[in-house]
Amino acid sequence: MLDRVFGPRRARQFHRLLHNGKITLLCLVLTIVVLRGNLGAGKFGTPEQDFKEIRETFYQYRGKRAEPRRVLEEIQTTTEQTTSSSSTNNYAEFDINKLFVDEEDDVKKNPNEPYSIGPKISDWDEQRGEWLKQNPNFPNFVNPNKPRVLLVTGSSPKPCENPVGDHYLLKSIKNKIDYCRIHGIEIFYNMALLDAEMAGFWAKLPLIRKLLLSHPEVEFLWWMDSDAMFTDMAFELPWERYKDRNLVMHGWNEMVYDEKNWIGLNTGSFLLRNCQWSLDLIDVWAPMGPKGKIREEAGKVLTRELKDRPVFEADDQSAMVWILASQKERWADKVYLENHYYLHGYWGILVDRYEEMIASYHPGFGDHRWPLVTHFVGCKPCGKFGDYPVERCLKQMDRAFNFGDNQILQMYGFTHKSLASRRVKRTRNDSSNPLEVKDELGLLHPAYKAVKVPSS
Amino acid sequence: MLDRVFGPRRARQFHRLLHNGKITLLCLVLTIVVLRGNLGAGKFGTPEQDFKEIRETFYQYRGKRAEPRRVLEEIQTTTEQTTSSSSTNNYAEFDINKLFVDEEDDVKKNPNEPYSIGPKISDWDEQRGEWLKQNPNFPNFVNPNKPRVLLVTGSSPKPCENPVGDHYLLKSIKNKIDYCRIHGIEIFYNMALLDAEMAGFWAKLPLIRKLLLSHPEVEFLWWMDSDAMFTDMAFELPWERYKDRNLVMHGWNEMVYDEKNWIGLNTGSFLLRNCQWSLDLIDVWAPMGPKGKIREEAGKVLTRELKDRPVFEADDQSAMVWILASQKERWADKVYLENHYYLHGYWGILVDRYEEMIASYHPGFGDHRWPLVTHFVGCKPCGKFGDYPVERCLKQMDRAFNFGDNQILQMYGFTHKSLASRRVKRTRNDSSNPLEVKDELGLLHPAYKAVKVPSS
Repeated sequence: MLDRVFGPRRARQFHRLLHNGKITLLCLVLTIVVLRGNLGAGKFGTPEQDFKEIRETFYQYRGKRAEPRRVLEEIQTTTEQTTSSSSTNNYAEFDINKLFVDEEDDVKKNPNEPYSIGPKISDWDEQRGEWLKQNPNFPNFVNPNKPRVLLVTGSSPKPCENPVGDHYLLKSIKNKIDYCRIHGIEIFYNMALLDAEMAGFWAKLPLIRKLLLSHPEVEFLWWMDSDAMFTDMAFELPWERYKDRNLVMHGWNEMVYDEKNWIGLNTGSFLLRNCQWSLDLIDVWAPMGPKGKIREEAGKVLTRELKDRPVFEADDQSAMVWILASQKERWADKVYLENHYYLHGYWGILVDRYEEMIASYHPGFGDHRWPLVTHFVGCKPCGKFGDYPVERCLKQMDRAFNFGDNQILQMYGFTHKSLASRRVKRTRNDSSNPLEVKDELGLLHPAYKAVKVPSS
Repeated sequence: MLDRVFGPRRARQFHRLLHNGKITLLCLVLTIVVLRGNLGAGKFGTPEQDFKEIRETFYQYRGKRAEPRRVLEEIQTTTEQTTSSSSTNNYAEFDINKLFVDEEDDVKKNPNEPYSIGPKISDWDEQRGEWLKQNPNFPNFVNPNKPRVLLVTGSSPKPCENPVGDHYLLKSIKNKIDYCRIHGIEIFYNMALLDAEMAGFWAKLPLIRKLLLSHPEVEFLWWMDSDAMFTDMAFELPWERYKDRNLVMHGWNEMVYDEKNWIGLNTGSFLLRNCQWSLDLIDVWAPMGPKGKIREEAGKVLTRELKDRPVFEADDQSAMVWILASQKERWADKVYLENHYYLHGYWGILVDRYEEMIASYHPGFGDHRWPLVTHFVGCKPCGKFGDYPVERCLKQMDRAFNFGDNQILQMYGFTHKSLASRRVKRTRNDSSNPLEVKDELGLLHPAYKAVKVPSS
């Protein structure tokens, strides 16, 4: 028929053209299909969304730093738009943040109104002494040389910014539960931000003050960061040494009082006595904390006044160094800077020596031979970025946990297959006379945990 | 030149052909480029990998159940091949599983050799009684009517299969720490698989037996699942009621002994006395646990013998119902099936009534008016899939946590802004006489926590 219209030759050419055109068309269609795939087939996103997804797709597959959490959320968002996630049973398809849309930060109230951590209290020792006399069933000493201690730690009410963070917080509190059970110490795990102005490293201050005033039966409050783990389950603190002190931190007198070095002490693990002196210290400590202008300005002062301090907003540790160095006569005689054992131990100098410690020593020393605490300063496992390589941080946190956990497991005849392994193996066969089996470390029923029995 | 070879017409045709060919070629190249994108540009994966990635890509963007964790790992694997993740400080770029390559499951040893949970012990009451006489400093009763209790719970040594799972495990143990601190109960959080054969819901048995035999000072062991939370912080268990019982579970006599209903009791929260009777029960309970053939076959028996039980491998709860129903005379007189309060409370019937409870009652009842425990049966927050919509599970777990947490916060003058909010607000101003402020629930210094002071 074409022949009749154009004549045979033109017809043949047209056919050829048509034939090539088919291939062209096929290719175009294929191209579009695949492209649509990347642009989120099945939904019609806004151009911005589409662009964002193309970008992500590129990042993912070009190996550039794609940020899983975000990719994750986008996948989930995509999913929510296609399937009704409110009815899915698949955790992968649900974005937890959907549950907390209302959770933006509080706005600071009146910026002119000065910050107060609470009403001034000047007679706490009298108030507390009276209460203790009235409540003999809640003694502040469990036995003549062992004070009642409350270990306080905590983490954000939100999930971590990276998925494994919460798993390490879980391991970290399990580790603390173990040490505290063995040593008869109570735990308070905080997940609430009591004072929006004191967010970050300053959040511990309002919490600590509140707990001291609410628990007169507590003699010492032991603050411990969530990224610090007990690595010596057998070490009992030398309470006798602190009988005349109100604040015990790991540190060195020269570095703090002479050098004013911002790392002359560490506030990741410290003891604070429940007394008026401590309330007064908190009153002097807290004013640098309120976030925004105050904290930033204070940071400049601290960087100027202290040795080697980088430029950043005021932190509780630098503030403490500055207070002790600048008001030595007021505080120093009640402060004990401990370095005979690791009340806080920097992980960098400890974690690679665990095997050596196992070969040469045993738990109970608390010092370089077997550190009481291994503190993962700078790893920020609950954040997006740390100051150290993530692989080293996570690997070493597991090693520290297992190193401490082996001391718990040995009580029951088990041990980790290696410091790098989550799995455990038996170290002895079960006995039909289990009570005759002695745990080498004597952690099952340690003397320092024994209770006084009424002389009846 | 073509003209000279073919003559002008053929040449023109050839040009046309070439021209169309160009378009075709362009399309093909474009297609391949985009396809290569999906196949992981920049790296040359094996065909299997490529296929896997195409599949994932399809799932992701077609809104089918894409599994973030896996997508995540693939993105990270991709990343690792291009950038050196061992030196990254970005948690998003690191795959935690890289740290545990050696961690595959143990292979069952000799399948012919019968399973044993440990050497037979027949004189535990004598052994334990002797030990208690020798160790008066570790009494099994903290006061005449309050036994020493060890709450046992735990979770897998691995991170959860979904990223938010670990965050809820963390909230769940914080919740237990709070109840146990107030009620003077010790906690053992297990993260070790002591017996590879008893993985899953059976893992608690070897653990419980080990703890009973290692801690003769413990009178009652309280098992609690990781997905159960305390929602009444003021309720103290009626210990007097159990003085002649060895096992206390939430349940109903008729449903267990008459109906043989597999949900006639719940093993997510139960009390077990430290005595020979309990060891004997465990010896009868455990044999259905070993994974593989035994557990599967036992599952068939249980589904056949019990009312309404779905078809699946043997679980510890069904096994307990079956033991009690089939050997009533042997065990029943020492078992207390509790339903006067929620030792275990199914979340489905409780979580939507929290507001009503707040309006009409107060903590301390432990029953329908204010449940002691809210147990998220079937939500499997640490798994990939739950039996219920994820959004409802997560939302209600947060409500349950906050409902319980409000009772802790009120001691310190705070409360959650709502049961749906992670944020808190003040309920009263701080006082300069903090000890005069009474916490309505009297949880700061409850009578049941008071210690006996030596009559000196």
